[in-house]
Amino acid sequence: MPLNDGIKEGFPLKHFVEEALSEWMKGDGPDTDIVISSRVRIARNLKDYPYPMLATIQQSAEVLEQVSAVLQNEDLKTISEFTLVPLHELNELERRILVEKHLISPNLATESRNGAVILNENESISIMVNEEDHLRIQCLCPGFQIKEAWDLANQLDDIFESHLDYGFDETRGYLTSCPTNVGTGIRASVMMHLPALVLTQQINRILSAVSQVGLTVRGLYGEGSEALGNLFQISNQITLGQSEEEIIDNLYSVARQIIEHERAARKQLMQESQIRITDRVMRSYGILTHASIIDSKEAAQRLSDVRLGIDLQVIEHVPTHTMNELLVMTQPGFLQQIAGTLLSPDDRDIRRAQIIRSRFNAVS
Amino acid sequence: MPLNDGIKEGFPLKHFVEEALSEWMKGDGPDTDIVISSRVRIARNLKDYPYPMLATIQQSAEVLEQVSAVLQNEDLKTISEFTLVPLHELNELERRILVEKHLISPNLATESRNGAVILNENESISIMVNEEDHLRIQCLCPGFQIKEAWDLANQLDDIFESHLDYGFDETRGYLTSCPTNVGTGIRASVMMHLPALVLTQQINRILSAVSQVGLTVRGLYGEGSEALGNLFQISNQITLGQSEEEIIDNLYSVARQIIEHERAARKQLMQESQIRITDRVMRSYGILTHASIIDSKEAAQRLSDVRLGIDLQVIEHVPTHTMNELLVMTQPGFLQQIAGTLLSPDDRDIRRAQIIRSRFNAVS
Repeated sequence: MPLNDGIKEGFPLKHFVEEALSEWMKGDGPDTDIVISSRVRIARNLKDYPYPMLATIQQSAEVLEQVSAVLQNEDLKTISEFTLVPLHELNELERRILVEKHLISPNLATESRNGAVILNENESISIMVNEEDHLRIQCLCPGFQIKEAWDLANQLDDIFESHLDYGFDETRGYLTSCPTNVGTGIRASVMMHLPALVLTQQINRILSAVSQVGLTVRGLYGEGSEALGNLFQISNQITLGQSEEEIIDNLYSVARQIIEHERAARKQLMQESQIRITDRVMRSYGILTHASIIDSKEAAQRLSDVRLGIDLQVIEHVPTHTMNELLVMTQPGFLQQIAGTLLSPDDRDIRRAQIIRSRFNAVS
Repeated sequence: MPLNDGIKEGFPLKHFVEEALSEWMKGDGPDTDIVISSRVRIARNLKDYPYPMLATIQQSAEVLEQVSAVLQNEDLKTISEFTLVPLHELNELERRILVEKHLISPNLATESRNGAVILNENESISIMVNEEDHLRIQCLCPGFQIKEAWDLANQLDDIFESHLDYGFDETRGYLTSCPTNVGTGIRASVMMHLPALVLTQQINRILSAVSQVGLTVRGLYGEGSEALGNLFQISNQITLGQSEEEIIDNLYSVARQIIEHERAARKQLMQESQIRITDRVMRSYGILTHASIIDSKEAAQRLSDVRLGIDLQVIEHVPTHTMNELLVMTQPGFLQQIAGTLLSPDDRDIRRAQIIRSRFNAVS
């Protein structure tokens, strides 16, 4: 889509902040009717340096330098091309966009010293430097590919480990800034769209079962545990006392069961109240294609309805990647990026409605 | 539109119950942005017969016979062609449709003995026989034409009076079954669409002023005083002690003032909150063109929004007559007529949504 060129000329990562289309948004991959994306993050620290929160600016700079040096490694280049972006080169809006694309954490955006992010071109890999830990290797795959994301992250980790001196303890495993990450340093998560479990009021039972097997659930974009747009991020709670493979396998099998429950709930909805579901989906589509003002909460809910409609083949002409793009493009940072200026909340609601209308018009 | 031919073959008034398009629905006429229709009804009784409620079947039959005889009059034929429909020839659904088209009263549909209605082809004239009074002459014009409606009704009344012996008293005027009609026997009304006065919360002040000058306000189709779809019927309360011309002039000038208030309120809305009004109108349009189920209350409100949008030129491709047709076609009787069968309330909500979608599709 046409974008305002309000950002500074020659910015090396123009496309990271101007284009919504990361690899994970393309909507390819297994089980994309329910799983939006799969992510693995590995936390690592250099043995000889204090954790970033306690490090001096000089120490953080040295950490960044050591990590940067690894980028020249040939093994790394066979995986992908990488670009290192120091956070201080980005303005506030650009940082916000990287957060909205899940490429960096809000923490790195606002609080890091000598913070940086290493990105590959399709944005499936992002490596944060000097966030809570010295190194956070993240791999993001479209659909249900948690094992693939783990394999890739593991490969990257091996390369970095062969060049850096990681903090490691024989009994406790990899050492991390926060004790909740000690051990494997792994956080694996799947982002799931579970509208039918919400509509059939099974979601609370399922989520409470999930938390009993050492997993945790968060919403996407929403405050706290509120799941805007029926999007739930399910991740491992435990990093210690289980092997990496056990952690990934556990998440995989629980997510697989949730997928089956969601599919069954969708089938039940279509059998028992097809016309009501169709009505709900089509009303949301009618509103999204006609509204002049829409806030983020309503947009998330109605986009969820339309996504469900696409998966149930009630709506056939809208591709899934349009829905993934809109998920990101309707966030405040992106809206302002497209507008080329900071916007009041009211103006954002107007811009949001415009972008939604124009994206749907483009595919109708 | 295509109609199911579920009614009996050769029914002489097929088009009265199958077509929604009465003259008043065409949307021509002055001030149709605010006034849907203008109506005058004159109540008259034959001197030598008891009022219908007290009359025997034999007496009612004689009244019907005397009135029918007048239809042969040449003066009457210069005004229009007429058809007399005895109520006992109509089934329940057909009666209901005539009620929904405002051609007969609910009372005539259900309770009359030897009840009948005399209609002209474009349905601008309907004369009820053996309703509450022996004769109720009604003229219905599109837009703000209350004086024209009165002139026509008056002409018809003169013709009937020259052939029938009306009950009349020198001091009390024309005698009627209910004392509220005694005197002139006139009830004049205008049906107004007042969304901007409702939105700007001026409506209660205006309606209370109206009731202080001897006029009364009712909703269209709604129960009691609830005005579904922001449609208000304003009519004279008083029939005694004022001349016909005074009654018509009073209603005319009050309605004229309300028209100006509504226009000012619309202008104000567009100046102060154009985007919010546009949003409201377009959301309603989006819902009406996409919903699979819609109840009568919601349909009335959303059709009102779209009508306002047409008048404010927010929507330009939908003709006013489509809105008037939908007003009638979304009523239960018509829905069932089109379906060719009786429908449950749920099925009516589905049919209503279908008809609305197809009417809007036809003009998009």
